[in-house]
Amino acid sequence: MNEHPHSKSYGPVVPQSHTFSFPEEGFPLECGKTLPEVTIRFESYGTLNAAGDNVVWICSPLTADAHVAGYYTPEDKKVGWWDALIGKGKAIDTDRFFVVCSNILGGCQGTTGPKSIDPRTGKPYGSSFPEITIGDMVAAQKLLADHLGVQKLYAVVGGSMGGFQAMKWAIYYPGFVDRCVIIASSPRFSSQALGFEIIGRSVIQQDPHFNGGDYYETQVPETGLANARKLAHLTYLSPESMEKKFPRESGTGIDPEHFKLGIPLESYLDYQGKKFVERFDANSYLHITYATDTFDLATEYGSLEKAFEPIQAEVLNISLSTDWLFPPQDSLKITYALLNINKKVSSLELDSKLGHDGFLIEVGSLGKAVGQFLDTKTRKDSSPGTGLLPAFSDNRSFDLLEKMIPAGSRILDLGCGNGRLIETLQTKGITGVGVEKNFKSILECLGIGVPVIQRDLDESGLSHFEDAGFDYVVFNRTLQEVREPLSLIHEILRVAERAIITFPNFGHWSVRAALCWYGRMPKSDELPYEWYNTPNIHLFTLQDFLRMCESEKIKIDKLVVVNEKPLSRFLTALGKKNLGAEQVVALVSKH
Amino acid sequence: MNEHPHSKSYGPVVPQSHTFSFPEEGFPLECGKTLPEVTIRFESYGTLNAAGDNVVWICSPLTADAHVAGYYTPEDKKVGWWDALIGKGKAIDTDRFFVVCSNILGGCQGTTGPKSIDPRTGKPYGSSFPEITIGDMVAAQKLLADHLGVQKLYAVVGGSMGGFQAMKWAIYYPGFVDRCVIIASSPRFSSQALGFEIIGRSVIQQDPHFNGGDYYETQVPETGLANARKLAHLTYLSPESMEKKFPRESGTGIDPEHFKLGIPLESYLDYQGKKFVERFDANSYLHITYATDTFDLATEYGSLEKAFEPIQAEVLNISLSTDWLFPPQDSLKITYALLNINKKVSSLELDSKLGHDGFLIEVGSLGKAVGQFLDTKTRKDSSPGTGLLPAFSDNRSFDLLEKMIPAGSRILDLGCGNGRLIETLQTKGITGVGVEKNFKSILECLGIGVPVIQRDLDESGLSHFEDAGFDYVVFNRTLQEVREPLSLIHEILRVAERAIITFPNFGHWSVRAALCWYGRMPKSDELPYEWYNTPNIHLFTLQDFLRMCESEKIKIDKLVVVNEKPLSRFLTALGKKNLGAEQVVALVSKH
Repeated sequence: MNEHPHSKSYGPVVPQSHTFSFPEEGFPLECGKTLPEVTIRFESYGTLNAAGDNVVWICSPLTADAHVAGYYTPEDKKVGWWDALIGKGKAIDTDRFFVVCSNILGGCQGTTGPKSIDPRTGKPYGSSFPEITIGDMVAAQKLLADHLGVQKLYAVVGGSMGGFQAMKWAIYYPGFVDRCVIIASSPRFSSQALGFEIIGRSVIQQDPHFNGGDYYETQVPETGLANARKLAHLTYLSPESMEKKFPRESGTGIDPEHFKLGIPLESYLDYQGKKFVERFDANSYLHITYATDTFDLATEYGSLEKAFEPIQAEVLNISLSTDWLFPPQDSLKITYALLNINKKVSSLELDSKLGHDGFLIEVGSLGKAVGQFLDTKTRKDSSPGTGLLPAFSDNRSFDLLEKMIPAGSRILDLGCGNGRLIETLQTKGITGVGVEKNFKSILECLGIGVPVIQRDLDESGLSHFEDAGFDYVVFNRTLQEVREPLSLIHEILRVAERAIITFPNFGHWSVRAALCWYGRMPKSDELPYEWYNTPNIHLFTLQDFLRMCESEKIKIDKLVVVNEKPLSRFLTALGKKNLGAEQVVALVSKH
Repeated sequence: MNEHPHSKSYGPVVPQSHTFSFPEEGFPLECGKTLPEVTIRFESYGTLNAAGDNVVWICSPLTADAHVAGYYTPEDKKVGWWDALIGKGKAIDTDRFFVVCSNILGGCQGTTGPKSIDPRTGKPYGSSFPEITIGDMVAAQKLLADHLGVQKLYAVVGGSMGGFQAMKWAIYYPGFVDRCVIIASSPRFSSQALGFEIIGRSVIQQDPHFNGGDYYETQVPETGLANARKLAHLTYLSPESMEKKFPRESGTGIDPEHFKLGIPLESYLDYQGKKFVERFDANSYLHITYATDTFDLATEYGSLEKAFEPIQAEVLNISLSTDWLFPPQDSLKITYALLNINKKVSSLELDSKLGHDGFLIEVGSLGKAVGQFLDTKTRKDSSPGTGLLPAFSDNRSFDLLEKMIPAGSRILDLGCGNGRLIETLQTKGITGVGVEKNFKSILECLGIGVPVIQRDLDESGLSHFEDAGFDYVVFNRTLQEVREPLSLIHEILRVAERAIITFPNFGHWSVRAALCWYGRMPKSDELPYEWYNTPNIHLFTLQDFLRMCESEKIKIDKLVVVNEKPLSRFLTALGKKNLGAEQVVALVSKH
């Protein structure tokens, strides 16, 4: 028996509406025109606190509405489109937050749009509806926020075009927005995505019933709108998910005379087109897609960095691995532009099978990440780091690193694990950003407010990080794990003037003894793996490291040997560092 | 000064045409209907030899024509669409080959199609033109081949939909086709690609001028056809190439009232649509796309293996890295199905920036691969293999391997380099397929007729290879280079009952001495790299290997130690194999 869709839902909600009138000056739009009044239809969940600052503002994507959670009547089969994320005890916890979502300006679901009656004429706007922008949508939402008594957004959260709005919120109202969550979005559409949009609009406008946009009293351009929707819908799905979803066998619908394949994909697209035409207005579709297509922060402000300069919010930027409408590499432009101007930003790429639509459907990991980001707490336990070398305790290494890094520095911690090093250094006035590939570790970082960028160093090294963007790079016990250690070291000394590299010494007497006497690759506390499953793929001795620095013109400013075993200490004291050193901490810089 | 486009061209060509009449029975189509006559327009280059067997048959893609090389008049600004590949001394060498390309059945460029006059009515076929298939296109081409006196195709070559035709040629006429080159194609369209096709056809059919296909005497459905073409055109480009090609700045064409962005991409798409409408017929577009959409070898024959069973041709299957219309993973289904039934197949994925269109534009590597495949020669030089260990000579290792592998066996050679091992073993009645990632090595394999699959073992191991498809896997001196040696060994023993693994012994006395006495990672003839740039990332000793086999329940059927140095031989003779062995050759199997 299927569980009732309401059983885990937020609960019953009542849509609300408010009309803002501007009898004199009109509501100003970015195109220079005005609207005599703006009606906003919205929903809210949870309770606004007395300070008016427990607000999570949801920005809706292209054609979704304000019904983001809950249900209207007990008979409703469907719940709001992000019900899985919003509710009691959920990622966006309505016991704690007052959550608001409104229908966007220009739409057709209760907020003012081309289908609305123009109070000046008593007829629908139609072709006379002015051009709107993402900024206009956000300005209208700000009207509503002020009207509701909101003093501050704890967070603004938006996916897809909602991400465009979330960025504009953080740029337009910096003091008003504390956190900004951008999901499956980018600083602008790719040329490929624009291509599909251009064709979609062309198909609508060339429908013989379109009549320049004035069709409300005649026939609506259903065929064109349905085809545009089918096309857009394809861009929301991943090729993999389509392959899985649609069997290839032709059913009874096959009809070569009319070029019908009779396959489930065909009827699915027809259904999507038909369903959409029932709920959406062609003029709204044209206006909203035009607003998304003209959204281009770098062009508007001169550069992404200039666009983001006003932002005070902490940013969490999430992309989906199979999203080809907003590919992860486009989404990352947001992350690196924010990093370049020292803004606090975390970023991750979620494994997803469903393409762009994943942000509406596969909300498991998404919920975890958003939940951790919204629910930052000081770490309670003192769980160990995720490093390889339990013998070299975190506390000792942190002490050492702390002494090497002056207060006020900005560091990049490669392979930052659960973020403990940055958390510790933050208490000494050092700011830092972590780089980590493991999702669980990233969640831990988000949970303690340590900014972290998800990245696999083997895949792309430090490309995207600008030159000299940091004072120090800390590369703590991972050099032997990377695929290309030498090029990474050079990259490290490009993005920071100095680097602190720690590594286990393969020249240690116990390692040499294992290989020399027993003829086997050594296994020990420091090297606990078998040769065939070790992540340590570039083993090297202290001596090897020193020679590499010499030949690559890398200056060693400081070298500290860390030992746990008495014999190691004895050998080191005798000056036999390459035999004695268990762990090495090296502060290096460019010659 | 730009070079004249003709300077490197094949030269002047004259299009030809022939009409085949079937006054009684008609030309039979796969749908069961017939055509009273079939006219084929075609071009040819070079000269047919007396035996009629020096023919390279080119199958054209969706909307291209027979004009594959050369020019018509000295004033022609354009040359044929694959002129870079076809001509004197080019990959498809017209000094040696007689090259033919024809316009496809159902098209609108001189070969019978919906626009042609139906001799029975004296009017264009229009809506009465019967359904055609890829098989019909090939059957019509076979008429032409027979008419021209062709006895055998040295090779059939096709890209995109031309690949569909090339496969059908090899399946329908097995004794007639010696080589089959499939480029940027797959056994069927992906669901995603079908989605775009379905929408494109729908847009044409919903053009008010379409009139069910009978529009030749009224107005042609230009708008629908242009929009369909724009949409299809997007699928031919890669997102990267679009980003590069189209600047984002709006020009004078910006027009918010009509939702025009005024960007170069918009006018480019308009231009593509307009140009297409001038040269192509909407009915042909519907018929040809329907033929590509219904092409699905696995469904038609029960499985890909069953579809390919009749094939006698040697196959070269080429995909392009950024092609998302025919993604490399879909193209590879052809390769692995052929491998599964012991057909001779080579396959490679070319680095490309231009998406699907790359096969028409970026013909450098493509030409090299096709050229090598068509121009197979016995190796003249005895250049050394690409292995790591010059001290362990190819000849000695080949002798050893030859003794271990019985005649009649089928082997898979992982990291096959220039293919010399398989070439050598072929002379002993052993057949083999190589796996290699390096493009230059693959070209060498193709040039000596050694089948080779391009593949990076670190990326996908041996997935796609079926269980027990080979008698032996040879894994010659690359175990220490792979990322996951253990899982790869298990994969190896899945695809073959036995494996021969050769590796350098890190337990050799000289290696131990280097680390033990000098405290540095060893460098030697056998290990010539620095620790930070070595491809040898999983070092291990003979002893380590034996222990792994024991714990992983891998049976060692034979173990041979190979030494060059006298001291190594002496130690081995004393029974100190782990100290003495320089190289090890192990024949292993599952317990």
